[in-house]
Amino acid sequence: MNDCIFCKIVKGEMPSYKIYEDDFVYAFLDISNDANGHTLVIPKKHYENVLDCEEETLKHVMSAVQKISKHYVDDCGASGVNILNASGKDAEQSVFHLHFHILPRFEDDGLKVFPNLSKNKESLADLQAKLKMN
Amino acid sequence: MNDCIFCKIVKGEMPSYKIYEDDFVYAFLDISNDANGHTLVIPKKHYENVLDCEEETLKHVMSAVQKISKHYVDDCGASGVNILNASGKDAEQSVFHLHFHILPRFEDDGLKVFPNLSKNKESLADLQAKLKMN
Repeated sequence: MNDCIFCKIVKGEMPSYKIYEDDFVYAFLDISNDANGHTLVIPKKHYENVLDCEEETLKHVMSAVQKISKHYVDDCGASGVNILNASGKDAEQSVFHLHFHILPRFEDDGLKVFPNLSKNKESLADLQAKLKMN
Repeated sequence: MNDCIFCKIVKGEMPSYKIYEDDFVYAFLDISNDANGHTLVIPKKHYENVLDCEEETLKHVMSAVQKISKHYVDDCGASGVNILNASGKDAEQSVFHLHFHILPRFEDDGLKVFPNLSKNKESLADLQAKLKMN
């Protein structure tokens, strides 16, 4: 997409701190420079998010997410990673080109990544009846 | 694994609110019953997390994550989803059987899923030099 900032990064029309690249995927440091190596992994082809991404492309992206995560733990001193995605405006997505965040984690890094979520009013049985697929 | 609670759920030795199942993947409601449909997607085969999971299995899991996410948005009234994974104790992982969280999101649901992260001390250029893969 012409006006997509991540498409411009893929094409080299905008600078980025590249971490990894293959035929399908590009990964670079999040410009916010937080979480000691906050990385974004994106498909080179433009998709808005997980909801419209072609399945094969999503698999390529996830393989790269895994590869980079293992590299951070095996070679770069991290002891774990969080992987996050926001799909949709109401899910706090800000750039509408599919991206997965990798947050490298370290012992006693003081981060709190998993959110505090408010209790749901419906019972799990009622929710299951509404959401069940098979 | 004999003492893994998620393996027991897959085998039907522990109850769960199942949402989706195929040959490789099982998905069920998180027992915390928060975020209006908080769902866990796991491989049937035991892996600790993204760091040790076999690549093909991870792809199966991610395809199911996508399928369920689309179902929540297309058929169940959600307007987006967050996808989260914790790999490693220091990444706040609590159950050591690979799982992806899906948090269905709704307009004005009041949740704040994306974490506040502290600024990193190193420059992006220094970090890139340390983390770069190719």
